[in-house]
Amino acid sequence: MKYNYPDDSLALHTDAYELSMMQTYWKQGISQKRAIFEAFFRKMPFNNGYAIYAGLGHIIQYLKNLHFSASDIDYLKTTGQFDDDFLEYLRNFKFTGTVRSFEEGELVFNNEPLLQIDAPLIEGQLIETAILNILNYQIMVATKASRIKTVVGNQPVMEFGSRRAQEFDAALWGTRAAYIGGFDSTSNVRAGKLFGIPISGTHAHALVQAYRSDYDAFKAYAQTHHDCTFLVDTFDTLKSGVPNAIKVAKEMGDQINFQAVRIDSGDMSYLSKKVRKMLDDAGFTKTKIIASNGLDEQTIQNLKMQGAQIDVWGVGTKLITAYDQPTLGAVYKLVAFAGKQGKLVDTIKVSNNIGKISTPGKKQVWRINDRIDCKNEGDYVALDHEKPQKESVLKMFNPNYPLQRKNVRDFIARPMLKTIWQDGKFVYDEPSLAEIRQRRQKSLDDFWNEYTRNLNPEIYPVDLSPQCYDNKQKILTEVHQYVDSFKK
Amino acid sequence: MKYNYPDDSLALHTDAYELSMMQTYWKQGISQKRAIFEAFFRKMPFNNGYAIYAGLGHIIQYLKNLHFSASDIDYLKTTGQFDDDFLEYLRNFKFTGTVRSFEEGELVFNNEPLLQIDAPLIEGQLIETAILNILNYQIMVATKASRIKTVVGNQPVMEFGSRRAQEFDAALWGTRAAYIGGFDSTSNVRAGKLFGIPISGTHAHALVQAYRSDYDAFKAYAQTHHDCTFLVDTFDTLKSGVPNAIKVAKEMGDQINFQAVRIDSGDMSYLSKKVRKMLDDAGFTKTKIIASNGLDEQTIQNLKMQGAQIDVWGVGTKLITAYDQPTLGAVYKLVAFAGKQGKLVDTIKVSNNIGKISTPGKKQVWRINDRIDCKNEGDYVALDHEKPQKESVLKMFNPNYPLQRKNVRDFIARPMLKTIWQDGKFVYDEPSLAEIRQRRQKSLDDFWNEYTRNLNPEIYPVDLSPQCYDNKQKILTEVHQYVDSFKK
Repeated sequence: MKYNYPDDSLALHTDAYELSMMQTYWKQGISQKRAIFEAFFRKMPFNNGYAIYAGLGHIIQYLKNLHFSASDIDYLKTTGQFDDDFLEYLRNFKFTGTVRSFEEGELVFNNEPLLQIDAPLIEGQLIETAILNILNYQIMVATKASRIKTVVGNQPVMEFGSRRAQEFDAALWGTRAAYIGGFDSTSNVRAGKLFGIPISGTHAHALVQAYRSDYDAFKAYAQTHHDCTFLVDTFDTLKSGVPNAIKVAKEMGDQINFQAVRIDSGDMSYLSKKVRKMLDDAGFTKTKIIASNGLDEQTIQNLKMQGAQIDVWGVGTKLITAYDQPTLGAVYKLVAFAGKQGKLVDTIKVSNNIGKISTPGKKQVWRINDRIDCKNEGDYVALDHEKPQKESVLKMFNPNYPLQRKNVRDFIARPMLKTIWQDGKFVYDEPSLAEIRQRRQKSLDDFWNEYTRNLNPEIYPVDLSPQCYDNKQKILTEVHQYVDSFKK
Repeated sequence: MKYNYPDDSLALHTDAYELSMMQTYWKQGISQKRAIFEAFFRKMPFNNGYAIYAGLGHIIQYLKNLHFSASDIDYLKTTGQFDDDFLEYLRNFKFTGTVRSFEEGELVFNNEPLLQIDAPLIEGQLIETAILNILNYQIMVATKASRIKTVVGNQPVMEFGSRRAQEFDAALWGTRAAYIGGFDSTSNVRAGKLFGIPISGTHAHALVQAYRSDYDAFKAYAQTHHDCTFLVDTFDTLKSGVPNAIKVAKEMGDQINFQAVRIDSGDMSYLSKKVRKMLDDAGFTKTKIIASNGLDEQTIQNLKMQGAQIDVWGVGTKLITAYDQPTLGAVYKLVAFAGKQGKLVDTIKVSNNIGKISTPGKKQVWRINDRIDCKNEGDYVALDHEKPQKESVLKMFNPNYPLQRKNVRDFIARPMLKTIWQDGKFVYDEPSLAEIRQRRQKSLDDFWNEYTRNLNPEIYPVDLSPQCYDNKQKILTEVHQYVDSFKK
């Protein structure tokens, strides 16, 4: 099928209302006023104790290339909703703001800013949709991957989900997020090419069907590849698949490396034990057993408890679609705006639901690490001008339950939002994927296991500084006064 | 972030094992032998009685542009897994096969071929992953959209999910699938540009926060747009949002079209009734009420039963992620292969699970329509050479329960798989999106409502022809003999 216009920019990968608001800002003369937006989520994904931050790589790529093409402008004209002078502004649009963000691979939590845009109002508004579109997905996959890796331990785990992903970008970026979250390789060759993720995969049932014989298929494969993993369940795993894999391996001897057999159906626990014995009896004690088919952290944990003889895990659907919760629900809120007068004023979004009231003001997230045991005590969300790293005692308390509090001494406070763009200039030294993976491991190690276990984790404290809390209370009071001013 | 290579082709958007098998086929001299692959799914999505076919548009685009770029070959070389002669073949790869498919917008069912590739083995193998990646997502969204449209009825329903979609392609192609499934517009501007889908959307909470006043924000919006929908729940819907929307509308008079107010939080049933009364009392009886916030077919149905005064529906997360079942689980199986001798032989994939045994042979799907009442009697899956349209009586029976049968007379048999490519030549006259939407409506009308209702639908018969059934039995017997030939 043919597009109506060339697909030559991502500037219109945004919600229509962003452009409607931008036109209002533009025509009302406030489009260039300073605005702070922050992205955050309200609820931990999968009831997990932490989330893994991922998506910044794609956000950087998106923002670096952000521009309106001629065809974007032509299309917007046809809608009849936009004035010429506004479209002329868009034609020369350039992102000139400051971006701060957590780094990929870091553990992140609910109700703390993950990414912060400090930019002219009109610019910050445009990019909301794309930023959330990226974060809402990639954080889920990275977190799910980390949960799975927790159960898998030191065994290899491969991402196999491309065919079940929600379209191409999810297959591509999802596998990168999985790699950040702890996976070891991917089946997606394009991800191998673009990101350098190791690729893995051997053959499908189609090969065996084409030859109508396990033996012939394995033999053909062995004659054309040195490293061989045979898929043994096309006709019958124990009667035909494994015996013929062994037969071919014996015939080929040193000409091949009989790496593994893969089981993709049936009772994995039972079959893997039987297959292990058959391989061992034939002298192939180093040949691994790979399992795939609807696996996730639950099934893997159960298989391990049953003593399944599985060495390598292939995980697809449940990971790449974040099956048990397909989106994070992150939001992007205006927390401060300079308005006509030019003075930055903090803003709030209220709600009947206490947890949904946004926290006003430009903030920084400080991770508070105990100097003695080197474990994290909590995250401390403070207004941007505060300097908790210079305090000797930090008063930490839960903003929703202010009576729940502790005083922290002998700590190191580390600022988590790093500058990515400064006034339109890209200033971030981008890490490699390998470094991001190391960061995840390092970051995990800094937390007590009580926070990072898969089931019923303790809730890690994400606290507001007293100043930040008082500021929120003050602005909330102003809003209540505003609402009360409308007499019936 | 920078890619390691240019992202200049989608040929590597495939699983590594496809390429491994292709190398085997190539080196063993069977790569050009004729192979038939069919894509189908085994289980109806969402326990619905039908699915809506979508994704062909993207598959066509993918196949038309399919080629290996120089950078693809360069990358594959670095893996050390592929021989030079095979890579040289890839460099000149071109799809030369025949493709048949359901048309988008048609109702489709489990266990019938949706898309069929009749091509040299090596070509059919490469494209498996991308085809499934597309179908597994788009069919889900189109089907979910159709379920929602069933409940919404003649009211407009808008797709609002971009920010919650699983990365960019899902936002873009998902909204196209939703439009095919019956939605009326999208918030995604890029989808408006590329596909011509009507865009909709007004303003967000950020606008009201920026002005720190409903009145000022609505006034500013009204001064910069003719059609106005005001979002009324930033501070307090009933006390501040709606009264100020009405105030601005009265002040602006004919200068604006006060289309609607939108409610995005709180108790939709209660609020919508109150808001309706306020608008009516102020004389704005034609101003609509738009609701959004976590809606799906269940919540909409319940709101309607409660008499909620909602005129227009905005649906995001639950639709665009196919929240209750994020993937279809469609598979792509080899059903016939010519082998070395060149004669096409039907192939099977067996399984301990009866429902998972594939149906061998190149097939056509015939939709059997009763001449008298013009409703569909069932789908009849026949081998390709059969001509059920010329029979006077069709014996239809359930392949899993052969005793469940009926004879059908006075019918019209319509072949559902249309030719898209013939021997590498694109021969399909692509319909417009408007035509695809009409097809869905027409297709739905041809089914008894018992099959298309949302809850507990009757199971529509998808039957095998006796020849097709006997062929499956015969080949299954051969496989059992093959497996039994391996004595312990």
